[in-house]
Amino acid sequence: MPESLQPMERCLALARSALMLSNPNPRVGCVITTADGQILGQGHTQQAGGPHAEIMALRDATAAGHDVRGATAYVTLEPCAHHGRTGPCCDALIAAGIGRVVASLEDPNPLVGGKGFARLRAAGVNVEIGPGAEESRALNIGFFSRMVRGTPWVRLKVAASLDGTTALHNGASQWITSSIARADGHAWRARACAVLTGSGTVLADNPRLDVRELSTPRQPQAVVVDSRLQTPPESRLFATARGVLIYSSLSEDPAFLQRKAALEACGASVVALPGPGGQVDLAKMLRHLGEHGINELHVEAGQRLNGALLRAGLVDELLLYLAPLLLGTGRGMTDLGPLEMLAQGQPLEFGAVERLGADLRILARPPGRADF
Amino acid sequence: MPESLQPMERCLALARSALMLSNPNPRVGCVITTADGQILGQGHTQQAGGPHAEIMALRDATAAGHDVRGATAYVTLEPCAHHGRTGPCCDALIAAGIGRVVASLEDPNPLVGGKGFARLRAAGVNVEIGPGAEESRALNIGFFSRMVRGTPWVRLKVAASLDGTTALHNGASQWITSSIARADGHAWRARACAVLTGSGTVLADNPRLDVRELSTPRQPQAVVVDSRLQTPPESRLFATARGVLIYSSLSEDPAFLQRKAALEACGASVVALPGPGGQVDLAKMLRHLGEHGINELHVEAGQRLNGALLRAGLVDELLLYLAPLLLGTGRGMTDLGPLEMLAQGQPLEFGAVERLGADLRILARPPGRADF
Repeated sequence: MPESLQPMERCLALARSALMLSNPNPRVGCVITTADGQILGQGHTQQAGGPHAEIMALRDATAAGHDVRGATAYVTLEPCAHHGRTGPCCDALIAAGIGRVVASLEDPNPLVGGKGFARLRAAGVNVEIGPGAEESRALNIGFFSRMVRGTPWVRLKVAASLDGTTALHNGASQWITSSIARADGHAWRARACAVLTGSGTVLADNPRLDVRELSTPRQPQAVVVDSRLQTPPESRLFATARGVLIYSSLSEDPAFLQRKAALEACGASVVALPGPGGQVDLAKMLRHLGEHGINELHVEAGQRLNGALLRAGLVDELLLYLAPLLLGTGRGMTDLGPLEMLAQGQPLEFGAVERLGADLRILARPPGRADF
Repeated sequence: MPESLQPMERCLALARSALMLSNPNPRVGCVITTADGQILGQGHTQQAGGPHAEIMALRDATAAGHDVRGATAYVTLEPCAHHGRTGPCCDALIAAGIGRVVASLEDPNPLVGGKGFARLRAAGVNVEIGPGAEESRALNIGFFSRMVRGTPWVRLKVAASLDGTTALHNGASQWITSSIARADGHAWRARACAVLTGSGTVLADNPRLDVRELSTPRQPQAVVVDSRLQTPPESRLFATARGVLIYSSLSEDPAFLQRKAALEACGASVVALPGPGGQVDLAKMLRHLGEHGINELHVEAGQRLNGALLRAGLVDELLLYLAPLLLGTGRGMTDLGPLEMLAQGQPLEFGAVERLGADLRILARPPGRADF
């Protein structure tokens, strides 16, 4: 990291290095400096249950023999005031004699937001809030979503030809995009708490839905929307050590119960969330996932499940890889039902558009999805 | 134009200002300077039949009272040596006493290429070739295509939703992209010698296929692929003053001949180019268009004609507008027939990708299309 970075930019860079590590905790960076900006210690959130960024930075300063009394702690999120799996960070900052805290944002959890700042101020610590707020929130959009809305940030990943075909009529789809795009797709999987697909994709493609194209400190959970429990127990989904969660409708049919027992024997958790028409209730599923600590939900599914999520207004972001290729008609990105008017389509706003090897990567969101 | 531009950059900017004007002649700019770079005169190709860039620059210098004897003429294409509708430019340069010519490229016409340079050299003029070659060729890709291959540069324009839908099942397509994208599409029409569509689009949408969203000194010709002569004589195609060319298959059927006479009475030229299966022979059509001075052919057609052109290997470039919108299934960009393998798709290479208001504009080409 260049020495010349401003302390808050350095904090944000440290936070980004926790991208695949700290889930379901937020990605937070902390830098402790003297009044004239000399760095005394720095750190970022570790894996869940491990130390938060402030503790790492204090330890780093101690290890280097620095005295942090009267120093400034820059941090990308409000220091916590609660006893979770680690002690409250604001108590540690106070105990170390930190004189000033510059934080990007208040904790989005309405139950705890502001308490850390209040405790710091009560102890005589000077508190400033705001620098780096936009970047810190964007980096933790899934954490903010879960804390504020109670549901994950839902990111739909699609790989298609330039004319919007994701697979030929016969199902052939390997590989439309280049290896560079596929590796990038794995990086997005790795930052998510869970990867979701439908039973149709499991049956057709038997995907592993894990992170293989890059090294990661943890694997995202696998989630399958499978109303009739058609996921075969021998699916490659089960080959990776991580949780597998299967959402089904409800049935007392003995064959259904037998399949359920077989899947549970493979380590899957089967949750019945019946909705209309014998389908899984997708909105309830998101609340359930939110309750179980899922910040970012990475969806890699077929056009039916993609369409169902879109029609239910549950998609927050589209992560689209477009290959320089025309395939004509085939399987599309989303099944929105036959529309009668253009105004019935799903409007989006383009975010970053980038070349990725020979392909294009396009981020797009329905308008206003991040306004929570 | 900034004074600080290098002479050849200035020439290229002048050439670009002839983009919608000089068809079917190339877009050429010329700047005459003293040895130390002082500009004596400048100009660009006028409308067909009007003066070329060199003549305009010489006249500009004369009008300003400048003596061009011994001066340098920068020009983006070899000065012509033949008597067309104007006298040979190289004779005019020699007669004016120009001492040095710096030209971007040799004339691509194999019958005349090099003769202008030879005549200049024989008259004692110092000739240098090369600066600005790439830009000049790109600006005149249609002229080069017609001169070298005998056929136009075929540019397929498509406007679609992000998931590749160009119209709903019921045909609704107005408007998928924004007014900014549509105006840009008209600018691309304006630079083309002709705009091509199919009878299906004429019957479904009754398009004018002229340039309306910006001012243009000339209208591109309209060309319709219409094997059975289904274009109604009351089509809006005929509302604009410019040539309308209709390619049909051949028939002695009295009703066909009657429709042909009715279209000719509207001012259309009907050309029979029968190909296999009762369809128009598209490759022959391109040669015919090349013989009739069409440099850039701008295609705005439906998925069937787009697909037929692609399958025949006749498309040089894709000009694609993608709107931030998902429409699900509907009419696609191209009908390539049901493919069995991804390798049967049409590979492309991305060129410029730009935001255009809320939309994306993507240029892409089949690999190697400009290698002629």
